[in-house]
Amino acid sequence: MNLNSMNETPMSSRMAIGLFGKRNAGKSSLINALTDQSVAVISDVAGTTTDPVYKTMELLPIGPVVFIDTAGLDDTGELGLLRIEKTYEVLRKCHFAIVVADIETGITDFEEEFIDQLIKRKIPSVFVLNKADKGCPAPEEIEALKKSLKIPLSFTSVYNGTGIKAVKQMIIDHANYEDVEPALVGDLIDSGDMVVLVTPIDKSAPKGRLILPQQQTIRDILEKDAVAMITKEHELKHTLESLNKPPAIVITDSQAFLKVSADTPADIPLTSFSILFARQKTDLAEMVRGIKRIEQLAPGDKVLIVEGCTHHRQADDIGKVKIPRWIRQIAGCDIDFHWASGAHYPKDIGEYAVIVHCGGCMLNRREMQYRVHTARQKGVYITNYGMLIAYVQGILSRALEPFPAAKLALEENQLN
Amino acid sequence: MNLNSMNETPMSSRMAIGLFGKRNAGKSSLINALTDQSVAVISDVAGTTTDPVYKTMELLPIGPVVFIDTAGLDDTGELGLLRIEKTYEVLRKCHFAIVVADIETGITDFEEEFIDQLIKRKIPSVFVLNKADKGCPAPEEIEALKKSLKIPLSFTSVYNGTGIKAVKQMIIDHANYEDVEPALVGDLIDSGDMVVLVTPIDKSAPKGRLILPQQQTIRDILEKDAVAMITKEHELKHTLESLNKPPAIVITDSQAFLKVSADTPADIPLTSFSILFARQKTDLAEMVRGIKRIEQLAPGDKVLIVEGCTHHRQADDIGKVKIPRWIRQIAGCDIDFHWASGAHYPKDIGEYAVIVHCGGCMLNRREMQYRVHTARQKGVYITNYGMLIAYVQGILSRALEPFPAAKLALEENQLN
Repeated sequence: MNLNSMNETPMSSRMAIGLFGKRNAGKSSLINALTDQSVAVISDVAGTTTDPVYKTMELLPIGPVVFIDTAGLDDTGELGLLRIEKTYEVLRKCHFAIVVADIETGITDFEEEFIDQLIKRKIPSVFVLNKADKGCPAPEEIEALKKSLKIPLSFTSVYNGTGIKAVKQMIIDHANYEDVEPALVGDLIDSGDMVVLVTPIDKSAPKGRLILPQQQTIRDILEKDAVAMITKEHELKHTLESLNKPPAIVITDSQAFLKVSADTPADIPLTSFSILFARQKTDLAEMVRGIKRIEQLAPGDKVLIVEGCTHHRQADDIGKVKIPRWIRQIAGCDIDFHWASGAHYPKDIGEYAVIVHCGGCMLNRREMQYRVHTARQKGVYITNYGMLIAYVQGILSRALEPFPAAKLALEENQLN
Repeated sequence: MNLNSMNETPMSSRMAIGLFGKRNAGKSSLINALTDQSVAVISDVAGTTTDPVYKTMELLPIGPVVFIDTAGLDDTGELGLLRIEKTYEVLRKCHFAIVVADIETGITDFEEEFIDQLIKRKIPSVFVLNKADKGCPAPEEIEALKKSLKIPLSFTSVYNGTGIKAVKQMIIDHANYEDVEPALVGDLIDSGDMVVLVTPIDKSAPKGRLILPQQQTIRDILEKDAVAMITKEHELKHTLESLNKPPAIVITDSQAFLKVSADTPADIPLTSFSILFARQKTDLAEMVRGIKRIEQLAPGDKVLIVEGCTHHRQADDIGKVKIPRWIRQIAGCDIDFHWASGAHYPKDIGEYAVIVHCGGCMLNRREMQYRVHTARQKGVYITNYGMLIAYVQGILSRALEPFPAAKLALEENQLN
């Protein structure tokens, strides 16, 4: 009966702010101080010893953010190496980084090297000298430090509250808001437009609720000052007839695509929720190329099937049974399937011909783009469940009509 | 990052099934056995020693249910009395009761009296003799017992699994589905109708989500094979103009009622989300009489302000500050305000002139109706926040147009 969790912003829509530094730099207590002002909206997500800890809050004017408390980067031993690896996994999804050091230890080569990594990855960041109550450097020393540092500098003390507000302001000033989550459908429509959403009510949706993709799409439409019409597939024809002018676009659940396509006149753009989410998280044209690569698979080729979370029973059925069956049908030969799930994404992906990824509803855009980018760098093609389902159902071509670059990728003869 | 809680059916929309009996009758292990088949959808809600424990599951074809494990009814001592009181509080919201006794102890006066209470309250129920692995009575004894019992009988053993399925089937056979949650708007519309929902997107709604009342209303519309149009208040006029025929009804957030009322032609029925929820949970005409009673309050009259939950900061501001201010303004005199919150509802309400209740989003219909019923039995009038807000804003009359009985109650000169 937790009201908060029922109405919380999805983790993947939050700006992710990671805290990095040596052990005992005071990262955890700094996160507590940063989030303290609004105790009611903080939630702890339990982690194992090697897993990062997440704390969510509203940081206005940014909106919902999640602070990620990573393990110390100087951890030693086997467990320590695992922690460092996890920390670098966190870095992949961060929109902003706070590098923390104890003021008594000061900045060392270690922090400088990490800052170089942030700059290389274009992650906005600040450097925080923590435990400032133990004594601050002289003004001229601070000036020299500021000059030598490649990112902004701040001083904090959790003990007496110094600098906590300043760090929040630095996040607000330096973070890149646009990077978090681009429009789902807002860029395809104008204010005042009508958008028709087709949503079969299946028994799997909880009574009295709408599933998250539907909620997110409606919100995106309303925020664009447009109007959302929600209908089941059987009322679509009647719904379209009741309008004085055609809607800007029809968006349907993939399940109902064939009927919806038949009932939607050819001059009205039509796509699916899963195509919109694939577009928001990744690159549609790349996903299309991944599908075309599947057509060319040879016997014994390796395909990696990836799920972003571990606790979705239904997805397991899709990933373990349906996706392999479809791929075999498309390729027309036996394939060597491998699987990965959870936040841990394999480092060595070079051996695979294609990666087929889930929709990634629990992963943010930065993480998904990292996965697409590293795959393509190694010559591996990548696509996702929604795209594969659309292809198998024969609806991909029409569903891509609103997206010229992806449509072109589908029509090209050569893979690039 | 719990996917389940993000998409769970609200507790108040579930069929509530209480387990009652002496301590050590095996209630807790019976609940575990009843819910075991679908471990993945069970969730434990933490309780204190005196609070009942809730376990949710899908029980098809009923749908979402919640099993409530109550403390032993024969508890002794001061804490024991508190537990018994809590148990009777649970009974108020139960749609179904399972009375459990240890087969070795058998049925005693105690269970028979409790069964009489259930019959008096018209709560469908079964009697379960548990721990049947310890030995079952002879067939003729069972027949005699069945004849003397006023409710169906079953035998269970958690130890060897006997009878667990049968008890579930008895719930399915004897429960009253309609009792759980009547239509929100479904009975006001026909299939194919267009319903316009006006939802200001305020900053308090979490990014990427729709608030629960909006989700529930959209679901209810779709389940009636009708079409929901979602618009912000500024696009309403344009939205209505884009339709070939007027919508069946316009439903708005109370915040935007005045603008929406101005933009909605008088021949189109218009109401608010809060009026719909008040109607679903209680009796609109009674709520209207409560408002009219506030007009007649005399100096020093006692008013009780009740909130169904304890963890909603915003509601606190409404209940503690705004509601008293409005009541003072309507009554034109000083009032003696009292407050109650959480599941514990005061037993002695006879001293109050009016009870003003929150919307009760965390309470189910049975519990809300119990509160209305007991108030009226004692000559106490009752109304709710949404109704009071609508009255203060001067919109109550129009918002009640679709509900003739409530409208009539508003127009009557005499309270009854």
